[in-house]
Amino acid sequence: MKDLTQTDAEALIAKLGANAREAASVLAEATAERKHAALIGAADAIIASESAILDANAQDMRFAEEKGLSPAMLDRLSLDPSRIRAMADGLRSVAEQADPVGRVLAEWDRPNGLHIQRVATPLGVIGVIYESRPNVTADAAALALKSGNAVILRGGSESLHSSEAIHQALVSGLRQANLPETAIQLVPTRDREAVAAMLRAQGLIDVIIPRGGKGLVGLVQSEARVPVFAHLEGICHVYADRDADPDKARRVVLNAKTRRTGICGAAECLLIDREFFAKHGPVLVQDLLDAGVEVRADGELSQIAGTIPAEPSDFGQEFLDKIIAAKLVDGVGEAIDHIRRYGSGHTESILTENDATAERFFKGLDSAILMRNASTQFADGGEFGMGAEIGIATGKMHARGPVGAEQLTSFKYIVTGDGTIRS
Amino acid sequence: MKDLTQTDAEALIAKLGANAREAASVLAEATAERKHAALIGAADAIIASESAILDANAQDMRFAEEKGLSPAMLDRLSLDPSRIRAMADGLRSVAEQADPVGRVLAEWDRPNGLHIQRVATPLGVIGVIYESRPNVTADAAALALKSGNAVILRGGSESLHSSEAIHQALVSGLRQANLPETAIQLVPTRDREAVAAMLRAQGLIDVIIPRGGKGLVGLVQSEARVPVFAHLEGICHVYADRDADPDKARRVVLNAKTRRTGICGAAECLLIDREFFAKHGPVLVQDLLDAGVEVRADGELSQIAGTIPAEPSDFGQEFLDKIIAAKLVDGVGEAIDHIRRYGSGHTESILTENDATAERFFKGLDSAILMRNASTQFADGGEFGMGAEIGIATGKMHARGPVGAEQLTSFKYIVTGDGTIRS
Repeated sequence: MKDLTQTDAEALIAKLGANAREAASVLAEATAERKHAALIGAADAIIASESAILDANAQDMRFAEEKGLSPAMLDRLSLDPSRIRAMADGLRSVAEQADPVGRVLAEWDRPNGLHIQRVATPLGVIGVIYESRPNVTADAAALALKSGNAVILRGGSESLHSSEAIHQALVSGLRQANLPETAIQLVPTRDREAVAAMLRAQGLIDVIIPRGGKGLVGLVQSEARVPVFAHLEGICHVYADRDADPDKARRVVLNAKTRRTGICGAAECLLIDREFFAKHGPVLVQDLLDAGVEVRADGELSQIAGTIPAEPSDFGQEFLDKIIAAKLVDGVGEAIDHIRRYGSGHTESILTENDATAERFFKGLDSAILMRNASTQFADGGEFGMGAEIGIATGKMHARGPVGAEQLTSFKYIVTGDGTIRS
Repeated sequence: MKDLTQTDAEALIAKLGANAREAASVLAEATAERKHAALIGAADAIIASESAILDANAQDMRFAEEKGLSPAMLDRLSLDPSRIRAMADGLRSVAEQADPVGRVLAEWDRPNGLHIQRVATPLGVIGVIYESRPNVTADAAALALKSGNAVILRGGSESLHSSEAIHQALVSGLRQANLPETAIQLVPTRDREAVAAMLRAQGLIDVIIPRGGKGLVGLVQSEARVPVFAHLEGICHVYADRDADPDKARRVVLNAKTRRTGICGAAECLLIDREFFAKHGPVLVQDLLDAGVEVRADGELSQIAGTIPAEPSDFGQEFLDKIIAAKLVDGVGEAIDHIRRYGSGHTESILTENDATAERFFKGLDSAILMRNASTQFADGGEFGMGAEIGIATGKMHARGPVGAEQLTSFKYIVTGDGTIRS
């Protein structure tokens, strides 16, 4: 969908960016109480606008059906009263979190009497580019506002009406709290040129967070001139070590793969130590087969009835489905080598009772999240106790792992002296 | 200087990048003792190679004189026994710092029994692009090594022989500690195409740190596809509030401007509250004039004998010289507005005995460093107690303010359960 010229799109984003920058300077100084009030006001307004939101969503659904969207996409797009309540609850839960701005992150004294504090500040302006789920409008805006940032939201073109109706409710919360309405802005066009302009908006947008499939995230990562918090894929590994407790291993492997297969923390590859396999047999693979998982097995493992032989391309693949790649390895060293080669730096879990082996796994890998005797499905801001997340990042810079309100802050140094001069 | 094609330069950086990545994976697991040994070994080797380093430097100096470099540039380039000793001392001082890798930055328990730790890890591969000072070779390599990162150094073309001789000493330290020699690599060419290839080396280099003048930093900031830690300019402001103690104010203003005028923390603009001026007269300006500073004064201030009238372009200018812009303002609000408009986000200092006014200054501004009753010349990693710095950053992402070894780390999450699964 392209009608805007590049110049038009850049002018539009420049205008939204200037509004956002102005709002951000107000938000940076806003009290915790006022941000809390805006979020609670927005939650109330979401509930009060239920029928308007449902009408807007119905319009989007008709359009999407005409366009022939897949049932999965239609499901992501669709809203009902319970999903609307969940959005309002999400806003309330973020409202009740501790305010991340102004926290003293570190402080120390210098021999010359200077007192130095590192204090959390907002990042500034956050751009969020997402696909069909309209609830991202509320979730992303809530975390941005909590952390004192202005946000520019560019929802999927399919969800434009739904997003607009939700945006209205959010703005009503801002208005009630006497905060600038431009603290939360929605890009008012379906035109894709606007996305391209956001990606180039250095100086206007401080960080871009893409929410969606690999196509969207890959595009954003390769084109953006603005910093990006994202993960491209969640190719999560579970490694069952020779010193694993077999009961714990069975429980964790099954949960890591099957609890929900479509999320980024779902396991995509099972590595089994040869000694574990010799001692305990094919239990881990059998459990998966019994649960209806397609096991693409390498080497000896493919002799287990019900598995299918793995192709080389099955390793390093994000299935997001009831499919798993499986392979025998010679100990933790080979597991580490495999994960370094095929992993995506998201989340990996080792199953072992051996502290030294776990330590080696933790040291040898540099994924954002490393686990021991726990399901990779815990890779989630809510499960980490962060209250909510805007996504999971695998970059090395700034925010890594689940990105909650705290991760949307930067810091500044406050240095206090008493007429102190440098010699 | 261009002989390499773009393809050649990219192949060269790809090779250095692959070496660095391999070295980085060894460094990430290296013990604190081994990194310490490599730094001490390098310091000893620097001292032992004094004559070789001085010979190489003499060669660079001859070349630079033929090229007609300015006396200031020649001074930055030149080495003598005391500068060589200072380099070795710098390496020893970084060696003695606490190891920043593996620190537990935060840890907490979840109700389901999971224990979560956030643990510091190296960033990976750091690219440093610098101008004529050959000592940056040792300083940057030391901080990178301490923080477990591999480094690719691209020194000024004028200092190539000096940098090579210093690099030899650093490599000898790595060798003695049995760490990979490719942990510290020097780009072996004067060709500028190599810089361009570094700036595009996404995936090979994790962060670029430019050290040099505005021309270099501006180029890096605008062209880099890799994250950059840098500041473009240090347009530092000092604001003398109505509630300033006049003695402290005189001491700090004079020091902030005159201690060293060529560093990024030197004050470039003095803002004086009208009430302070009415009460205490022109003392602050007079002190500067007496110290031989050219005061470019706005409005009434220009009536002080010895000042010269300010042009609009004097505000927001980084003089790096015995020159300062000066202006009267109506209180802290106008000072904040002025600094927001003309500052570069580096360092600003307020002189006041009034806590509420200081608080307003700290809240209203978002420079990397904000000070009270202290000289802006303290904007320095050493003065902050970080031991050493690789530079000062004004970006909002990741590292901000002085960048020491700690700021060259990222983190990962270590999650420990007991067969814990997600419901």
